[in-house]
Amino acid sequence: MGKKSLSTESYKGVRDFYPEDMFIEKYIFGKIRETVENFGYVEYGASPLEESELYRQKSGEEIVNEQTYSFKDRGDRDVTLRPEMTPTTARMVAKKRRELAFPLRWYSITNMFRYERPQRGRLREHFQLNVDLFGVEGIEAEIETITLASKILKDFGLKEENFEIQINSRKLLEKAYEPILKNKELFPVMLRLLDKKEKMGVDKFELEWKKLFKEPFEETKNYECPELKRILEILDKRGIKTKLNPYLVRGFDYYTDIVFEVFDTNPENRRSLFGGGRYDELLSLFGEENIPAVGFGMGDVTLKNTLETYDLLPQYASSVDIYLCIVEKEYTEAADTLASSLREKGLNVAVNYTYRKIGDQIKNANKEGAPYVVCVGKKEAETLRFELKELSTGKIEELSTEKIPDAIQK
Amino acid sequence: MGKKSLSTESYKGVRDFYPEDMFIEKYIFGKIRETVENFGYVEYGASPLEESELYRQKSGEEIVNEQTYSFKDRGDRDVTLRPEMTPTTARMVAKKRRELAFPLRWYSITNMFRYERPQRGRLREHFQLNVDLFGVEGIEAEIETITLASKILKDFGLKEENFEIQINSRKLLEKAYEPILKNKELFPVMLRLLDKKEKMGVDKFELEWKKLFKEPFEETKNYECPELKRILEILDKRGIKTKLNPYLVRGFDYYTDIVFEVFDTNPENRRSLFGGGRYDELLSLFGEENIPAVGFGMGDVTLKNTLETYDLLPQYASSVDIYLCIVEKEYTEAADTLASSLREKGLNVAVNYTYRKIGDQIKNANKEGAPYVVCVGKKEAETLRFELKELSTGKIEELSTEKIPDAIQK
Repeated sequence: MGKKSLSTESYKGVRDFYPEDMFIEKYIFGKIRETVENFGYVEYGASPLEESELYRQKSGEEIVNEQTYSFKDRGDRDVTLRPEMTPTTARMVAKKRRELAFPLRWYSITNMFRYERPQRGRLREHFQLNVDLFGVEGIEAEIETITLASKILKDFGLKEENFEIQINSRKLLEKAYEPILKNKELFPVMLRLLDKKEKMGVDKFELEWKKLFKEPFEETKNYECPELKRILEILDKRGIKTKLNPYLVRGFDYYTDIVFEVFDTNPENRRSLFGGGRYDELLSLFGEENIPAVGFGMGDVTLKNTLETYDLLPQYASSVDIYLCIVEKEYTEAADTLASSLREKGLNVAVNYTYRKIGDQIKNANKEGAPYVVCVGKKEAETLRFELKELSTGKIEELSTEKIPDAIQK
Repeated sequence: MGKKSLSTESYKGVRDFYPEDMFIEKYIFGKIRETVENFGYVEYGASPLEESELYRQKSGEEIVNEQTYSFKDRGDRDVTLRPEMTPTTARMVAKKRRELAFPLRWYSITNMFRYERPQRGRLREHFQLNVDLFGVEGIEAEIETITLASKILKDFGLKEENFEIQINSRKLLEKAYEPILKNKELFPVMLRLLDKKEKMGVDKFELEWKKLFKEPFEETKNYECPELKRILEILDKRGIKTKLNPYLVRGFDYYTDIVFEVFDTNPENRRSLFGGGRYDELLSLFGEENIPAVGFGMGDVTLKNTLETYDLLPQYASSVDIYLCIVEKEYTEAADTLASSLREKGLNVAVNYTYRKIGDQIKNANKEGAPYVVCVGKKEAETLRFELKELSTGKIEELSTEKIPDAIQK
């Protein structure tokens, strides 16, 4: 047609999941589902399309306009592809708060979109586990969610020494700097500055601090609260080490008190893995009475990188159990009958209908990652006995149809 | 802050999945995964963000502009939220065709977006199974995919008489109307007209036909081909009834030959459930040699409606196995110890940390849908024996921690 060829590349900054990639995603989120359900959480979901309004009040116009995918739909509505889950979760809880049973334990595994400048490890779409516990006022909520976060990592095979959990209280921070926080509106500004402390370096940070408060930055003193101490003690008793970091604040505006963040301790890669905290005041945005809430989010990209570093990801295994090759076209019916019997027994069976050379067909069975292969030709169609070959060992067994399922190790 | 409250509604035309809704989605796609993997298909995935270019050549500028979510990103790229999966699938196969093993059996379960005018049963986002078999030239591919489509429906409990599979060949259609198709470019126009035949009604259809071909519409004559006949015969032998419909064409431009569509036979609701066909020429769009391909897509909304009509959807069951209530705050540690032991045994345990009246806590266990409840108070903390109550029957058993897992029927 004289048209130029289309590109086979995905859109910039997002991923294609070939079966090998999908296998890893399914492994990661399958394991996560097990652990969070073990703690009594139930799964919910929502569309990535939300009205932009949802993010404006707590994330600020700037974030919506500069870091999200936002556009006008044909009905002139402002629409945003969700950059994070919490506003959606709060919206859904607000909508049915009278019908829901509290404490409410909810989790979701959904994709998030951010318009990021392309750089290593920063993607425009990633999948994220979100865990939220609504309706618990006391520190039991922080203790449970941090225990769960630690359990998820350990269930992947990570050891206590592979990660560090840092914890802090925003309320305590506000008290610690009370003397210089004459204006209440300075507090969110201070939080944002502290959040960037590590990234900007000490010199620049102290300069900015002085500009803001007209006096030099001083370390927090008498930074202790019984609540925070109790959380650390109980977690310690459970074998979960947590470290107080008096400058940890986390990025989102909506956190109201305790925040925590988990770091990879690998010296070559001390990155932040994920974090969360308490946000007791989000429901009032929807004109509802507030409900205490603690939650965290965990993204697939950083988690996958960490598990790779510690060699904790499984080898790809195809979901195909057995691959049937057909020697000549006339034996197709015999192969289909065999396939159908084996499928009824619960085996996942792929059939090669290309009628290519048997050697090529077996090569493709290998490429597919199928563990077993059977070739169906004249002898097999007549005797109904089949040579089952295990591709990893080359071991061959001659069997009747009924005996094949038992010979296959799932 | 004087700001007006945010709406708790989802964006127009998309769904929130509360745990009860998510349960149904997970049931539907869990069952589908089993059946398609049973036929040797492996799962892949991709982001819903694609460059708009991907849809222009085969779907036409009009569809991209009027029926999709398309916008410019900040880098001035035209981006579209995928309205269907096949272009993405073809792109991914084209990209790695040298590494992939054919026949290639791929399936995906992903969301699709269409800018539809809001009407009953038409949503702006739905989830869809896509099944594709690449690399099989012969009718074995059509036979397998139609067998699989039928098996999926039957695995949900639908009976042969609940649905009707119609089949046709676009190539045969082109041959049947050869005398009036003097201009080759009239064929796609004819297909689009035939596709709308049912919707527009006979009179309008015949009028349009005459306008197009300058002669009245005539029924197809000698409409028979050995290939189509053979497919019908083999499927019939397998107990799958298929009906030739010489005017079935399916909507997408890319189909090249056999197409099929599955209809609900319920007289009150004779809707189309899903369909598919052969598209042998899609890879050339990417400058690659073509690969024969047959596939179909199956959306969650129509499928769910049909299963509801035939009462084939399961009752909601929470993933929580046991719900612990705490009588007084001081017994929290005893409850946490019990929870932790039961979780280690694989039970999904939720704990109520609200310290409300026990009656209220049990009411919430019921609302949550937990099948069993245990209350932890003074006696339990001291004796380490617990009363396990089955909420559906009211039956109570007094047990030690170790005996609880066996008493619970998962």
